[in-house]
Amino acid sequence: MNTTPVIPDSVAVAGGKLVRTQGVTAPAGFRGAGIAAGIKVSGRQDLALVFNEGPDTAAAGVFTSNKVKAAPVLWSQQVLTGGRLRAVVLNSGGANACTGAPGFQDTHQTAEHVAATLSDWGTETGAGEVAVCSTGLIGDRLPMDKLLAGVTEIVHELAGGISGGTDAAYAIMTTDTVPKQAALHHANKWNVGGMAKGAGMLAPALATMLCVITTDAIATPAQLDEALRNATRLSFDRLDVDGATSTNDTVLLLASGASSVAPSQDELNAAVLAVCDDLADQLMADAEGVTKRVTVTVSGAASEQDALVAARTVARDSLVKTALFGSDPNWGRVLAAVGIAPIELDPNRISVSFNGNPVCIDGVGAPGAREVDLSGIDIALRIELGVGDAEVSIRTTDLSHAYVEENSAYSS
Amino acid sequence: MNTTPVIPDSVAVAGGKLVRTQGVTAPAGFRGAGIAAGIKVSGRQDLALVFNEGPDTAAAGVFTSNKVKAAPVLWSQQVLTGGRLRAVVLNSGGANACTGAPGFQDTHQTAEHVAATLSDWGTETGAGEVAVCSTGLIGDRLPMDKLLAGVTEIVHELAGGISGGTDAAYAIMTTDTVPKQAALHHANKWNVGGMAKGAGMLAPALATMLCVITTDAIATPAQLDEALRNATRLSFDRLDVDGATSTNDTVLLLASGASSVAPSQDELNAAVLAVCDDLADQLMADAEGVTKRVTVTVSGAASEQDALVAARTVARDSLVKTALFGSDPNWGRVLAAVGIAPIELDPNRISVSFNGNPVCIDGVGAPGAREVDLSGIDIALRIELGVGDAEVSIRTTDLSHAYVEENSAYSS
Repeated sequence: MNTTPVIPDSVAVAGGKLVRTQGVTAPAGFRGAGIAAGIKVSGRQDLALVFNEGPDTAAAGVFTSNKVKAAPVLWSQQVLTGGRLRAVVLNSGGANACTGAPGFQDTHQTAEHVAATLSDWGTETGAGEVAVCSTGLIGDRLPMDKLLAGVTEIVHELAGGISGGTDAAYAIMTTDTVPKQAALHHANKWNVGGMAKGAGMLAPALATMLCVITTDAIATPAQLDEALRNATRLSFDRLDVDGATSTNDTVLLLASGASSVAPSQDELNAAVLAVCDDLADQLMADAEGVTKRVTVTVSGAASEQDALVAARTVARDSLVKTALFGSDPNWGRVLAAVGIAPIELDPNRISVSFNGNPVCIDGVGAPGAREVDLSGIDIALRIELGVGDAEVSIRTTDLSHAYVEENSAYSS
Repeated sequence: MNTTPVIPDSVAVAGGKLVRTQGVTAPAGFRGAGIAAGIKVSGRQDLALVFNEGPDTAAAGVFTSNKVKAAPVLWSQQVLTGGRLRAVVLNSGGANACTGAPGFQDTHQTAEHVAATLSDWGTETGAGEVAVCSTGLIGDRLPMDKLLAGVTEIVHELAGGISGGTDAAYAIMTTDTVPKQAALHHANKWNVGGMAKGAGMLAPALATMLCVITTDAIATPAQLDEALRNATRLSFDRLDVDGATSTNDTVLLLASGASSVAPSQDELNAAVLAVCDDLADQLMADAEGVTKRVTVTVSGAASEQDALVAARTVARDSLVKTALFGSDPNWGRVLAAVGIAPIELDPNRISVSFNGNPVCIDGVGAPGAREVDLSGIDIALRIELGVGDAEVSIRTTDLSHAYVEENSAYSS
């Protein structure tokens, strides 16, 4: 089920206009492509390339916190220490995780081949400027003959405008039912674009989450790093579908400087956050098996960390999630879940509401609580702790038959 | 689905013989009863009483770690500070949690009425010697008229032998499909018996877990406390179906001294553990929606705590659990789950096996890993970390359609 809401053609946000019809090639200086290289047995698109024409090549990255990291994550982390990226090559159809030294060699060879091919086409590129992202089944080697042939081919296909980025967004999909793109056109004539697949990172991740953000702003690697860490902390890190964290999660931010505009750090932060936040929303809406789009907000917490921990604990609770699948305003399960969060708590000051209807006040049920109608797709679950001022929201989903079906039937 | 395995008539364990056909009335000095008091709308049995005739009334208790505690938990914790219990009254059909001061007053009144009725029948009893346990939907008040009338009636029904304990075991069931009982007859002529409902405590708990253990051994409250804490730590605390923890979890241990035998602390520990361990096994086998009985063993950990955290993380992982439901030996998900556990870990030294078949060796897939047959009901998932000597096993279940169905359809 794809519950992605239809948003207007563009919405005003962060000093610009946000659209979902464009992605990584919306900013000047970027070209993209997506092709079917034969990595997926289904024959669908499975190889994407994002190419930064410059003049700048500043970049930053955030990676999975999982201690078990896939070969492409280990490679890209190493590459990013230089703060420069000329290109990102991404494949679906295989995660290249838990593949040992030979798997790392595969990633290295892929980056070398991308660099050599781009150099042949006139942009001198080193393998140390090429990030690699992979997604799919953990534990199998990639079909390198197909992948390398695909790299040779995809460089021919690089295109700017809407099509290049959209092709790339399609090629990184696995269990996604729709591509996820967003672009912010800033009033000051610079842009941020992005694409993503999967759902989540750090704590989250249904399957692998990959995300590439581009901008034509002028920014240093340090500025990009600050903008990216701030944005992921407030967007992807607050998306938690099932508490699982991939071995391959990667979010990259590349700047071409092609707009000749150097925004302030605050402007850059706001724009990158707006794009990441919208992509996180799209990831939630297309998560595996989703039938409800749920926002868990914890307010009145003693600290932001407490609010985050409490919201995440509720968002991961199987009994809360199955109740929401059943449109059941079972607030007792919410209290039971909050009660196990390791935070400052007074059981007699907790209040809960569903879609604005109070169901529990100061730890005791409110009149009419069992009759609240949750039959719609969107559920706002609000928990007021009454012990402080901090507030955090986590995006999550319900736990449905479709989730069980998809994840029991698909060795992913 | 009830997958409780048929065990032999009795098995030798902890210096005695263990049977599942008897429970809390197996030890001398205990009587039990279970009746339908009208608390459940279904009309099924919903009120149980366990009565200690003495001569001793030593007791100990372990309660939920949830900060949101039900009224009967608050009451029984207070009662247990005295280290003495004459009786335990248990109801299904309502948890009496999140019911505020009026709910606590209901619990107090129940204990008072049990004490008064037992006193009328010749055993001078104070309310401070009566523990109260409740299970069912969180947030609603109990129908006190029916409950108090039931208390008056149930004291008439108290019986020793097998029937009294078995009736009590039936009366505490909610979503359980079978009653859970176990009794250990020690070679030295003393006994331990127990009954339980639900699945789990502390971290676990599908619905509320309640458990009453009895013994006719002579033991002080301190000895009982040690035996009970040791047993719960190694049994119920290592059962984790869905990571949820009830507001009402209670495990009580009552000693009558009627055997006139005073076992050593080690003997008592072993016997109480044997009964708790067997009850934990029965809880797993009858957990909501279970189709697979799964044991997750983590060995080679740097510490017992690390092994426990890693095993629990895997046991709670929705992607691992749905894969097991699908009989899919998806070891990559196991590695991804282990990788997010906050423990000492070397990704290149992790090995994994399913039912003795190696699927991952030193962090890389083993030949034939995808072909391991997991179609049977029992799955032993073993994870060797290779960084130390500690080992812990956690009992869990798969995540099935039936789990989603049961928990989305039932406001529990």
